[in-house]
Amino acid sequence: MVPVTDKVNVALGERTYPIYIGSGLLGSSDIYRQHIPSSQVMVVSNETVAPLYLRQLTDALEGFRIESVILPDGEQYKTLEVWNQIFTQLLSKKYNRQCTIIALGGGVVGDMAGFAAATYQRGVHFIQAPTTLLAQVDSSVGGKTGVNHALGKNMIGAFYQPRCVVVDIATLASLDQRQLSAGLAEVIKYGLINDADFFSWLEEHMEALLARDGSALAYAVDRSCRNKAKVVAADEKESGQRALLNLGHTFGHAIETGMGYGQWLHGEAVAVGMCMAADMSRRLGWLERDVQTRIMALIRKAGLPVEPPAGIDYKQFLSLMGVDKKVMDGRLRLVLLKAIGSSLVTEDFDQTELNNTLNGYSGKLD
Amino acid sequence: MVPVTDKVNVALGERTYPIYIGSGLLGSSDIYRQHIPSSQVMVVSNETVAPLYLRQLTDALEGFRIESVILPDGEQYKTLEVWNQIFTQLLSKKYNRQCTIIALGGGVVGDMAGFAAATYQRGVHFIQAPTTLLAQVDSSVGGKTGVNHALGKNMIGAFYQPRCVVVDIATLASLDQRQLSAGLAEVIKYGLINDADFFSWLEEHMEALLARDGSALAYAVDRSCRNKAKVVAADEKESGQRALLNLGHTFGHAIETGMGYGQWLHGEAVAVGMCMAADMSRRLGWLERDVQTRIMALIRKAGLPVEPPAGIDYKQFLSLMGVDKKVMDGRLRLVLLKAIGSSLVTEDFDQTELNNTLNGYSGKLD
Repeated sequence: MVPVTDKVNVALGERTYPIYIGSGLLGSSDIYRQHIPSSQVMVVSNETVAPLYLRQLTDALEGFRIESVILPDGEQYKTLEVWNQIFTQLLSKKYNRQCTIIALGGGVVGDMAGFAAATYQRGVHFIQAPTTLLAQVDSSVGGKTGVNHALGKNMIGAFYQPRCVVVDIATLASLDQRQLSAGLAEVIKYGLINDADFFSWLEEHMEALLARDGSALAYAVDRSCRNKAKVVAADEKESGQRALLNLGHTFGHAIETGMGYGQWLHGEAVAVGMCMAADMSRRLGWLERDVQTRIMALIRKAGLPVEPPAGIDYKQFLSLMGVDKKVMDGRLRLVLLKAIGSSLVTEDFDQTELNNTLNGYSGKLD
Repeated sequence: MVPVTDKVNVALGERTYPIYIGSGLLGSSDIYRQHIPSSQVMVVSNETVAPLYLRQLTDALEGFRIESVILPDGEQYKTLEVWNQIFTQLLSKKYNRQCTIIALGGGVVGDMAGFAAATYQRGVHFIQAPTTLLAQVDSSVGGKTGVNHALGKNMIGAFYQPRCVVVDIATLASLDQRQLSAGLAEVIKYGLINDADFFSWLEEHMEALLARDGSALAYAVDRSCRNKAKVVAADEKESGQRALLNLGHTFGHAIETGMGYGQWLHGEAVAVGMCMAADMSRRLGWLERDVQTRIMALIRKAGLPVEPPAGIDYKQFLSLMGVDKKVMDGRLRLVLLKAIGSSLVTEDFDQTELNNTLNGYSGKLD
């Protein structure tokens, strides 16, 4: 039996579920046996992750009937068309309503497999086994699932909670540096929106995280999951405070959509989006200039970009943000900052400063 | 103000909603105003229904921002690809999470529009305005939404309840005779599974229904909706008795899938499926031969087929039934009959008699 280092509960009444965090957990038969109610298991993975970890997972699933579907790797494949491959496999193997889908991979695999679990025969069991930092600290927790549309990211989807999340820290050893940094963007986000102490801890431990120090990574994943679980438990369907988790995402989604999915990693776009949110907050007089500098310094230190790509102009930005889910009845809502660890969702801001941020933003302080 | 003849509640706790039944209700502004919470309304219809009723609906929606998307007509278009047209329209019109989708049409439109409402930005408001008898008595009530996959009918979908259902009996005047008969299959089903008095009433009033007598149709719709609402309220997600509503559907889906969607109407396939369920029940010794005769007589009187198409043999039937959602862990569950008004869901039957029904079934009593 593989020891579980840590367990965080996402408290959602009858849909409450645990996040298991530890090294080597992918191989933990005990966890799967607790959470898989019938014999049929379908593993959804991608062509990068499957060669590394599929065998370890299927060995731990001995005794179940296991099939798998291997998707192409990348955000540009998070489409209805690729998603349909999961159903084709489920149906050709005659899988029924009692089957369990396991997502083995990063955020794209988790979002697509989760949305397939939400909708196959109107809903089957689902387990997340995230293998990227971004998926471990963010996308695998909270039940957001979906695919992209050519006109907007994550526009087609469902809220669908997994039976459990299995976070194996050991998988981070194989993650490439760019993906690791992208995950750190979401880690930094938790510090910014709600947890100033964590932000300070990150400033002190960024080198250790980038060097993949096991205990530093475990601590960062645990604290991020606890932050996320608390917010999700209070507001599962994002009618209120959950929207704070979108810090940097409205700007970031515009970058991702405008550049074409797959050019920028989600975490990279969010990193720039957080810098833009900080810039706009400073222009509104809500954030001190030296705090903005400190935020950008940590994001840069994490190996992340702090400036948007040159290819998107101000009008295109506004148009791309107009179809973001955070827009209510035509008014743009943004997550902005009052300080490190203090954020708010608002549509009450001076549009001029938004335009200035979009137009004049260059990553430098002007 | 258009008077509402009747109102049936579907009791589902905080998701409780009314079915309004009456003549001319499509034009009732009052109903829409009660159930649409924001300005953006997207009407999903098809190329047959839109020319007949879209104008009447949009006139009643004066004051709202109205856009529409017109889909091709027919079960063969109930695909992910056609479904995606709804999102393209929502996104290009920059519709937000507070928008309302109205399904104006038959079962295919309702299923696709409802599934789009369930998943657009992870869920927006939804109203059903069914214009076929089948949609009015069955598919618009109960929250089953979805699309077909090449390997199985309704295999991708969600349970998603509407805000209300607006049943305008006047729309049945324009329905072609084949569609009217198809709807009567589901009406007869309610009598068979649970309501012997209604079955007898149908035997007496079938001519009136086929002649589109307004009060006969209103009564049949009302009684069908009450039957369905009761079952759905008791078992929203089909963990138990809701499965009774699938009488004839496992056989029927096999016919629809085997023949290619769009060749047989859903109601026609269900009609034959009910005859097959009756045949098998009789072979098992559960149903009297004269009762089987009586069932087939009513179905025939409704203008419906009682024999499966020649093109599907017994092995193909079994294979097609094997991917039906009603299969639990490899065992086939069927809805069978003990009498008119008395049905059961069971996987406990002699497989030989199933084979005999599939193999020897000819619509005649052998």
